Amino acid sequence: MVKKIKKIDARKELSMFGNGIVGQIDKGSNPDITLPIRALSNIFFDKKSGLVKLGIKVSHRSYLNTSHTRKFMQTVMVAAECNKIINQGVTTSIRDLYYALKRTIPDTNENTFEEQAESDPILEDLEATLNTLREALHLKADRKGYLAGPLTIVDSDDTIDCSKMGSSGWAIPSNVEGEIITFSKCTADYILFIEKDAVWQRLNEDKFWKIHNCIIMTGKGQPARGARRLVNRLHNELKLPVYVLADADPWGYYIYSVIKQGSINLSFLSDRLGTPDAKFIGLTTEDVKTFKIPNNVTIKLNKGDEKRAKEMMKYVWFKPKEWQAELRNMLRVGYKLELEALSAKGIRFISEKYLPKKIKEKDFLP
Amino acid sequence: MVKKIKKIDARKELSMFGNGIVGQIDKGSNPDITLPIRALSNIFFDKKSGLVKLGIKVSHRSYLNTSHTRKFMQTVMVAAECNKIINQGVTTSIRDLYYALKRTIPDTNENTFEEQAESDPILEDLEATLNTLREALHLKADRKGYLAGPLTIVDSDDTIDCSKMGSSGWAIPSNVEGEIITFSKCTADYILFIEKDAVWQRLNEDKFWKIHNCIIMTGKGQPARGARRLVNRLHNELKLPVYVLADADPWGYYIYSVIKQGSINLSFLSDRLGTPDAKFIGLTTEDVKTFKIPNNVTIKLNKGDEKRAKEMMKYVWFKPKEWQAELRNMLRVGYKLELEALSAKGIRFISEKYLPKKIKEKDFLP
Repeated sequence: MVKKIKKIDARKELSMFGNGIVGQIDKGSNPDITLPIRALSNIFFDKKSGLVKLGIKVSHRSYLNTSHTRKFMQTVMVAAECNKIINQGVTTSIRDLYYALKRTIPDTNENTFEEQAESDPILEDLEATLNTLREALHLKADRKGYLAGPLTIVDSDDTIDCSKMGSSGWAIPSNVEGEIITFSKCTADYILFIEKDAVWQRLNEDKFWKIHNCIIMTGKGQPARGARRLVNRLHNELKLPVYVLADADPWGYYIYSVIKQGSINLSFLSDRLGTPDAKFIGLTTEDVKTFKIPNNVTIKLNKGDEKRAKEMMKYVWFKPKEWQAELRNMLRVGYKLELEALSAKGIRFISEKYLPKKIKEKDFLP
Repeated sequence: MVKKIKKIDARKELSMFGNGIVGQIDKGSNPDITLPIRALSNIFFDKKSGLVKLGIKVSHRSYLNTSHTRKFMQTVMVAAECNKIINQGVTTSIRDLYYALKRTIPDTNENTFEEQAESDPILEDLEATLNTLREALHLKADRKGYLAGPLTIVDSDDTIDCSKMGSSGWAIPSNVEGEIITFSKCTADYILFIEKDAVWQRLNEDKFWKIHNCIIMTGKGQPARGARRLVNRLHNELKLPVYVLADADPWGYYIYSVIKQGSINLSFLSDRLGTPDAKFIGLTTEDVKTFKIPNNVTIKLNKGDEKRAKEMMKYVWFKPKEWQAELRNMLRVGYKLELEALSAKGIRFISEKYLPKKIKEKDFLP
């Protein structure tokens, strides 16, 4: 399934948002902002797209309701600041945003914001309301992750050949939207997305991407928005299959599901952050048998792991029989294992044996 | 002060280490390893070099002392594995090291290592004993940090121009030793080392490094060893002055002191990780007055900050009168502030006003 990417015009969205409020004031009515409810009660799994999505329930934030007034003001302030930085042509961090807006309201003891923990959710509200990405609002979240392979990207005026980045790889920026990052050349056959940087470094040192003509990417743990958006864009625009390599534990499986279906927290962005066609290449507890991994590098499941694995078995997106079998097997054998466990079979076992066999036999979980 | 870098031949050191033990066994004596004591009791500030250093106290680890036997075995195993990976010409992570060595000793229920928390300190012991860097032992710690500016580096077969890296910058690898990374061209006048990535991104977007002909680097919080070693090499080999930009709080000052004098924990590596000529460019609590920073973006000191500031006033390396004055001022005004606080004066205030003024007036703390 190839999805068409909707181009987001944040300036227009912000302008409509602001004009809406001004219109209400001009009419003499109580200014009111309509917000999608971002909570479990308003989340569903959309089978057609294969994504976790936000439902249609909304709430209201109105100026003359005293329990809303403060948040109403904050929402409008954040929107106005986004508009300002977009017009100035700069990008800024969500921490900068907080500092730029924090001030004492004249003739009061009231500050506009007390802590960044107050401005962050307001920004997410605004993203959901405008149906836009914070990156399109010129705001940056934390960045994490690296990439190497036969891909040339253009970032502003610089052309970066990701096959010539030495031991580092190209550092994935927080904003990978089309206005900043374009793909000028790509000859890769697929993307291998790796949970851990240490494993990425192993594969990079072994020139795995060169031998197998692919792109290797890591999110360094739970991937930041930039890395997830980049997978989404590379898959949709360059038609590259995506294989995810993570630990054989509930946390690794969760990372996979976030890349594939999107997350509950950012469900309003699943279209742009999720890649439903992604496949799970490993690690699985079944691999222990298949690859004769010595038993002493497995790790006993703790109570939390067991609880989480049982919860995951109930999620719609883990219902495919292969996942049910894997989760059942994990609970049966009572252990998990990390990617580094493959080192027990030799340092290059992962790049020379494990991955080539998995890819050749298309031994993936859906 | 320009220091000559001693070339470390880890293979030779490991060989001497191994031969020493074999020699003891051949003589029929109890094999014994001599280790420097890595604790506060064996740390001193070396005024001549300006570095925190390890003293001369040593401890012993001997095979036939049953309370040492396990650690003796582990130390020898780690040394043997390092020797193996160096000979194979690969690098690996400290987590991989743990997995590669973890096994059950035949005919016992005893595992060689139970957790990575057991193998990590053994590796630090070995580094201290051999007086070498883990990078020279082909082991990688976590990597963090980015760099941009008029510097061209060669990493393996790839030449990377750090002035053409778009919004990302060059990602600093964990191993920046001369065998991996060489500097092929540099026209920068100085290095600006920045505590926070968000501020680095602000300066990169404003092309600060281009306008002021410098290298901008960030360690993303407490810098990893790779970033500290890179500052040390750039300073010593290219004779670049180093200015550190951090928060005006005890944590920011501590980050500065680690870059300058080295850390207590890794005091045996201070020669290679510390840069005693580094200067502190800001932020300071004195800046609030100088730059008319609005009071409402300062943050009240908590009990922990106050305690830490008082402790720091007692450290030999914070004894210069300028630091004593700054720490006293912080305690007097009762607040700290983060670099992002400068955004209250405008998003580009830091790159267009604050830093240029500080550099022009050489307004540094020693």
